Amino acid sequence: MVSVLVLNGPNLNLLGTRQPEVYGDTTLTGIESACASHGAGLGLSVVCAQSNHEGALIEAIHAARGQHAGIVLNAGAFTHTSVALMDAIASVGLPVVEVHLSNIHAREPFRHRSYVAPVALGQICGFGARGYLLALDALAAHLSGDGGI
Amino acid sequence: MVSVLVLNGPNLNLLGTRQPEVYGDTTLTGIESACASHGAGLGLSVVCAQSNHEGALIEAIHAARGQHAGIVLNAGAFTHTSVALMDAIASVGLPVVEVHLSNIHAREPFRHRSYVAPVALGQICGFGARGYLLALDALAAHLSGDGGI
Amino acid sequence: MVSVLVLNGPNLNLLGTRQPEVYGDTTLTGIESACASHGAGLGLSVVCAQSNHEGALIEAIHAARGQHAGIVLNAGAFTHTSVALMDAIASVGLPVVEVHLSNIHAREPFRHRSYVAPVALGQICGFGARGYLLALDALAAHLSGDGGI
Amino acid sequence: MVSVLVLNGPNLNLLGTRQPEVYGDTTLTGIESACASHGAGLGLSVVCAQSNHEGALIEAIHAARGQHAGIVLNAGAFTHTSVALMDAIASVGLPVVEVHLSNIHAREPFRHRSYVAPVALGQICGFGARGYLLALDALAAHLSGDGGI
Amino acid sequence: MVSVLVLNGPNLNLLGTRQPEVYGDTTLTGIESACASHGAGLGLSVVCAQSNHEGALIEAIHAARGQHAGIVLNAGAFTHTSVALMDAIASVGLPVVEVHLSNIHAREPFRHRSYVAPVALGQICGFGARGYLLALDALAAHLSGDGGI
Amino acid sequence: MVSVLVLNGPNLNLLGTRQPEVYGDTTLTGIESACASHGAGLGLSVVCAQSNHEGALIEAIHAARGQHAGIVLNAGAFTHTSVALMDAIASVGLPVVEVHLSNIHAREPFRHRSYVAPVALGQICGFGARGYLLALDALAAHLSGDGGI
Amino acid sequence: MVSVLVLNGPNLNLLGTRQPEVYGDTTLTGIESACASHGAGLGLSVVCAQSNHEGALIEAIHAARGQHAGIVLNAGAFTHTSVALMDAIASVGLPVVEVHLSNIHAREPFRHRSYVAPVALGQICGFGARGYLLALDALAAHLSGDGGI
Amino acid sequence: MVSVLVLNGPNLNLLGTRQPEVYGDTTLTGIESACASHGAGLGLSVVCAQSNHEGALIEAIHAARGQHAGIVLNAGAFTHTSVALMDAIASVGLPVVEVHLSNIHAREPFRHRSYVAPVALGQICGFGARGYLLALDALAAHLSGDGGI
Amino acid sequence: MVSVLVLNGPNLNLLGTRQPEVYGDTTLTGIESACASHGAGLGLSVVCAQSNHEGALIEAIHAARGQHAGIVLNAGAFTHTSVALMDAIASVGLPVVEVHLSNIHAREPFRHRSYVAPVALGQICGFGARGYLLALDALAAHLSGDGGI
Amino acid sequence: MVSVLVLNGPNLNLLGTRQPEVYGDTTLTGIESACASHGAGLGLSVVCAQSNHEGALIEAIHAARGQHAGIVLNAGAFTHTSVALMDAIASVGLPVVEVHLSNIHAREPFRHRSYVAPVALGQICGFGARGYLLALDALAAHLSGDGGI
Amino acid sequence: MVSVLVLNGPNLNLLGTRQPEVYGDTTLTGIESACASHGAGLGLSVVCAQSNHEGALIEAIHAARGQHAGIVLNAGAFTHTSVALMDAIASVGLPVVEVHLSNIHAREPFRHRSYVAPVALGQICGFGARGYLLALDALAAHLSGDGGI
Amino acid sequence: MVSVLVLNGPNLNLLGTRQPEVYGDTTLTGIESACASHGAGLGLSVVCAQSNHEGALIEAIHAARGQHAGIVLNAGAFTHTSVALMDAIASVGLPVVEVHLSNIHAREPFRHRSYVAPVALGQICGFGARGYLLALDALAAHLSGDGGI
Repeated sequence: MVSVLVLNGPNLNLLGTRQPEVYGDTTLTGIESACASHGAGLGLSVVCAQSNHEGALIEAIHAARGQHAGIVLNAGAFTHTSVALMDAIASVGLPVVEVHLSNIHAREPFRHRSYVAPVALGQICGFGARGYLLALDALAAHLSGDGGI
Repeated sequence: MVSVLVLNGPNLNLLGTRQPEVYGDTTLTGIESACASHGAGLGLSVVCAQSNHEGALIEAIHAARGQHAGIVLNAGAFTHTSVALMDAIASVGLPVVEVHLSNIHAREPFRHRSYVAPVALGQICGFGARGYLLALDALAAHLSGDGGI
Repeated sequence: MVSVLVLNGPNLNLLGTRQPEVYGDTTLTGIESACASHGAGLGLSVVCAQSNHEGALIEAIHAARGQHAGIVLNAGAFTHTSVALMDAIASVGLPVVEVHLSNIHAREPFRHRSYVAPVALGQICGFGARGYLLALDALAAHLSGDGGI
Repeated sequence: MVSVLVLNGPNLNLLGTRQPEVYGDTTLTGIESACASHGAGLGLSVVCAQSNHEGALIEAIHAARGQHAGIVLNAGAFTHTSVALMDAIASVGLPVVEVHLSNIHAREPFRHRSYVAPVALGQICGFGARGYLLALDALAAHLSGDGGI
Repeated sequence: MVSVLVLNGPNLNLLGTRQPEVYGDTTLTGIESACASHGAGLGLSVVCAQSNHEGALIEAIHAARGQHAGIVLNAGAFTHTSVALMDAIASVGLPVVEVHLSNIHAREPFRHRSYVAPVALGQICGFGARGYLLALDALAAHLSGDGGI
Repeated sequence: MVSVLVLNGPNLNLLGTRQPEVYGDTTLTGIESACASHGAGLGLSVVCAQSNHEGALIEAIHAARGQHAGIVLNAGAFTHTSVALMDAIASVGLPVVEVHLSNIHAREPFRHRSYVAPVALGQICGFGARGYLLALDALAAHLSGDGGI
Repeated sequence: MVSVLVLNGPNLNLLGTRQPEVYGDTTLTGIESACASHGAGLGLSVVCAQSNHEGALIEAIHAARGQHAGIVLNAGAFTHTSVALMDAIASVGLPVVEVHLSNIHAREPFRHRSYVAPVALGQICGFGARGYLLALDALAAHLSGDGGI
Repeated sequence: MVSVLVLNGPNLNLLGTRQPEVYGDTTLTGIESACASHGAGLGLSVVCAQSNHEGALIEAIHAARGQHAGIVLNAGAFTHTSVALMDAIASVGLPVVEVHLSNIHAREPFRHRSYVAPVALGQICGFGARGYLLALDALAAHLSGDGGI
Repeated sequence: MVSVLVLNGPNLNLLGTRQPEVYGDTTLTGIESACASHGAGLGLSVVCAQSNHEGALIEAIHAARGQHAGIVLNAGAFTHTSVALMDAIASVGLPVVEVHLSNIHAREPFRHRSYVAPVALGQICGFGARGYLLALDALAAHLSGDGGI
Repeated sequence: MVSVLVLNGPNLNLLGTRQPEVYGDTTLTGIESACASHGAGLGLSVVCAQSNHEGALIEAIHAARGQHAGIVLNAGAFTHTSVALMDAIASVGLPVVEVHLSNIHAREPFRHRSYVAPVALGQICGFGARGYLLALDALAAHLSGDGGI
Repeated sequence: MVSVLVLNGPNLNLLGTRQPEVYGDTTLTGIESACASHGAGLGLSVVCAQSNHEGALIEAIHAARGQHAGIVLNAGAFTHTSVALMDAIASVGLPVVEVHLSNIHAREPFRHRSYVAPVALGQICGFGARGYLLALDALAAHLSGDGGI
Repeated sequence: MVSVLVLNGPNLNLLGTRQPEVYGDTTLTGIESACASHGAGLGLSVVCAQSNHEGALIEAIHAARGQHAGIVLNAGAFTHTSVALMDAIASVGLPVVEVHLSNIHAREPFRHRSYVAPVALGQICGFGARGYLLALDALAAHLSGDGGI
């Protein structure tokens, strides 16, 4: 099985444990489990990681070289400020699918700019936890050379 | 079966018939067929339309009220310039999934702004023709109230 | 009787038929009827038209030369994006009163710019359907050379 | 009779007394008389005031609470610079119709921004002295709950 | 004979029929005739079209593939606002010479930006109707591979 | 014969002598010869000059008064930075046709602004050395009062 | 006892008398009384003033020289627009503590800029009426040379 | 003798009485006396006024019509923020010479913009109190029709 | 006793140990001790932490949920760059008082923007170490529901 | 006698010899003669120079060290573009009075910025040729240490 | 021997181990060895460190006080985003030479801004690994007080 | 020996002869001598030139083709304003090392932009006269193909 990394950035560890009446009760663990199951159906071995540390995320991307065939990345707020993450992705040369729970283009202007986007395969945002599964679908298709339909 | 509209904007009629060595040989007809098949698997009846006329796209959105449960929209270049399309979507109140073949956030700055985004459920871009199928997945999940995973 | 054109742009055909609890139940037809009645009281023969097509609006303005003495124009979202409408108005040289249902200056920044304004007599916005009647009043006064009070 | 305030800002006291060959010979007194007459026909008791002092205008708006049912305001050049006037209007919660003699959107860019607009009912500009009468019409309709046509 | 398309955009149908004391009395028909004659002298078969509809212009460009060897395009006001036209030109891959009657760089700032320019061979502006003939000269030289002098 | 000046700015002296595989082997001398020949065919006596010095170009424009009936000017990079050249052109009141070898509007943003344009008759760019001949055509037509077609 | 001035700007006279369900029922008089009591506890004699007139505020600051040891200033909306107030503070050289009832940095962008800040000791905002007492604490500590802790 | 007004704006009343080691010990009274003496030598009767109130300055300019042949205006900080002063000057049509003690173009960016400049004859800044005398010289020359040298 | 967190960001660990002639000799330990004492007087149990790591600060804020009733936060330079800290604060929903030693609004422009401010109760800056004690006062009042005076 | 340099920049050599009906018939020679006469009355020996070459102006400023006590500089259009002139003035440390014939602050926006201003004593603009004499007055007063009145 | 720190930021640990055909095969270890050797020749004891963690870099700079006489810093992408690193450098007061492998001024605009530059001695960029050795030369000269040549 | 050009721009001829207490007493001649000596040690024959004329600098770069193997360029203030210098460098295709005495990135914003940088090998700034020697080192290494360490 091909291995892929699902990497989450700052504050995403809090998912589901706060304000469930607002954000639903899906936890990060729940998302990671769903990714593992969904990935398995796609022939992907899914490894998950999360960090609130920009440096740790950079190093996780570095470490993915040789370990994983691609990355599903929700860089959280670092999406909008981290040139270093951008450089890390460019350095390792792995295909990255950018995912966001909310529709970042419908929020504050400073969330419209993504430093991840110029070095990513594509972006999926606004579909909540479901976006991770769509991202795995997109990544799987890409890895299988199945760019068409 | 629930009916959904797959609506394509300007220049997308040319897909697959020009520069196949660059864009591949998937035609718009091919995409529309794939959407129909994929939608059927999701319990969706897919109706497809394309126009190079902003006014025709506006009217297609108007007409979708009562006819369709949601829209997958690739507004092409109108994405970046048409406030009128934005207003049309807001007017009919249907869930819209925005899709783009290319990663618009990795292209020229004037393609980073989307007038569709603020009134859309979410955005999927950068995955080529496959993006339409991911968009149908996202729309189907939304319509079934299956926002989680 | 002097003839004037009341011209409406994109999405205004939906007035009154959607979300009546929000926008009220005045339809475009209702506005057009009220314009006709109100215009008659001012000695104006009112002709009404609406289109969601920028090109059709341009041609309606072209055709107004020789047919009408002035125009009440609600260009909808084209107000903010269409240099071509601006040029059409400048070309025909007819007095135009710009009208908007909502107070565009209290909405999103991209609605603050009007390409119609620099070539219009004046602007009336924020008074809902009543704004059309005020616009006819203003146009009638202008046409009668009654610029004062 | 319902009482309303017609409030004029800086430099408007000079109307009609300077360059009559350019601005016409309608004086501010003339406008105020016309407002009184026109208001009477609408069932409104019109009280007029003018000041070149931002503070005096703020206090006139404060004093309008309990005295008047609404305000027709031509804030002159303060329109473009006074956040304090904006706050005064927001504080008293009265309906305000913004009026300008000239079409401010067709003049210098710094006249396109109105701090009054976001807290006003609507705006009428470009129709000269006639604009005050249109503003009274709009205010009367609003006060009578006659938002439609 | 090689066939080329001379394509005109919004409002250019009014040429010569309005304000002849300002714009001269050259009509669009006159320009088209002159283009045909001048083109014949260059060994070009000139086909002319005009539309006020962005969508129609897009489709005329689409249809030019296989029909024409190049396009002389005066996109009028769409020059400054239409990304869709830009994409259409890029899609068909035909050489396009951009022409404007007036010197757009000496007019309002919003007319300085051309979405056509980045996908055009070159631009000719400011020489009135004569500019079309110069554009045909430039296109003929380009088509004959006569890039030098 | 009417005399016109073909004036070239900085770096244009290098034309044709560097990187001929890229820029072709047309030298400035070649352009100047072609201009002389082409001009003769138009009844124009063509005088050519080039300088890398802004001051020398300014003085060449000053000296053109009384000597030449018009100027074809490729100001090179000074186009984008020299207000002094702009003022020189405005001062002498001669008709100037602005020419550029490349399509400056398709290059870096700082090359989009031309200080020459607001005081020029028109602009021709993107057609290589051929642009000079087109510019002479445009200037000849202007000088003969042949603004039309 | 050391004397200090608590100076309030435009619209703050309305505090507590309007919309008490929103802003609470603390009046400006209440704030001024609390300042006097709180100041007394700090060994400060507190004098209070309010004006809606920019000029009056400027003159109150001028007059504070020699009369007061420092100023607690809530300049209201003039904070964002008055360079003259800035200059007045710089002229008299008294320590000024800037205070705002609301968190101005969490409101509209035009409220983020403070012309008072560059010439003030520091800023306290977002704590409602309590902010005045904190400001007196800060001013008292500054005046006693107790800058540390 | 021709009468002229020397009008000073906010904070200028403090001149010379604060920080004399920095600003020198020339008071506003001293400047006004010097203006009177210097004006007398030029055949001008000089009347002086100062206010910290924008409204009072506006009214002083209004009142100058018929009373004075021209104005020397140091609007202080209102220079940079008051559109109303600009309108007042434009309204009365008197020649105004703008003067500033400091070189405003060498200070903070927000002091570089002058709303007075577009409606003034010219500007003199950076020469301290001496600038008022130069301004009177300039005004006297203008009034005597002695525009040359 | 209610527990609150006093959290300091990057470089603040150096306080008092460098350039004491400039910054005074108050160390971070000194500030923390003073906070503890002052907090005790307010009935608050104060826990202090500092980190130069953005991720560690994010996690300290996460961990505060359930442990502390509120936070006094000096995010140092991360104030101006960290959207992730902003999101962390928004996520845990605790009241945060923003504090800065210096008056950030009187420093370089890039220090004027605070990503903390939009999710904070209020801001206190410019009062040196004393600002922490004022912040505790403000937080205590907020926690006791004592929003008034 | 103290020697001063009156230095004129690009295009000013044309003064008076072109469009005398517009600019008057004062030539640069006339201005220079008037400067010499006026300077003599002030006890100044006036040396005049003009160049259209930025480099020559820089060298004239360099050469002024030791030769002249100050400079009256009309840098013409280089005012707005030449950082090198700014550096030259800063390098030689002579007092410079900036003068412009027209009111540059009332012209196109790109003429509002002066690179000379930050290194000049002050600026005089808008008074035509008379401005040179005022500049000599200001320079003479400065050189005599007569900064006051 | 004087000790200096060579500090590298995010992603630089990957040097030489990825895409050697593009970036060459110099590893970070290779650079550090070369720095040690080169430094020894300059009489410098070179200590090297690298981190992908902004906080760790800050603390390395803190720890350099008392340990090292200066720092050669390649902050990688943090150069463009980290105000905290800027503050850390300013806090410790050590001379810092900024180095970059690539010419950052020839890359994307967001790489043109350096927060390190305003607090650094100087910058060396674009010379690849050689830049570190040049930086050590510059630092050694500075430390020896050999600022000249 | 390989020949290289050390080219200095405007105002650099004044080095060392003005304000030696500020800039030191190193003259341009001193720098040039040091460059010759240092170059000799690197096997480079160093030719030096300086001009205050943009055109002369352009021509010096042109002339360097065939004469020199590379250029060390301190373009002085032309760095920030001259597109023509940029084009000259691009035209001749020689390796250019950009050098500045001061750290231009720590000065006024208009000195942050370099038109030389995009066409230069790299940049060295902030190290005074020593920077020229570092630049020669960098150029020598580049010319010897010694890009590594």
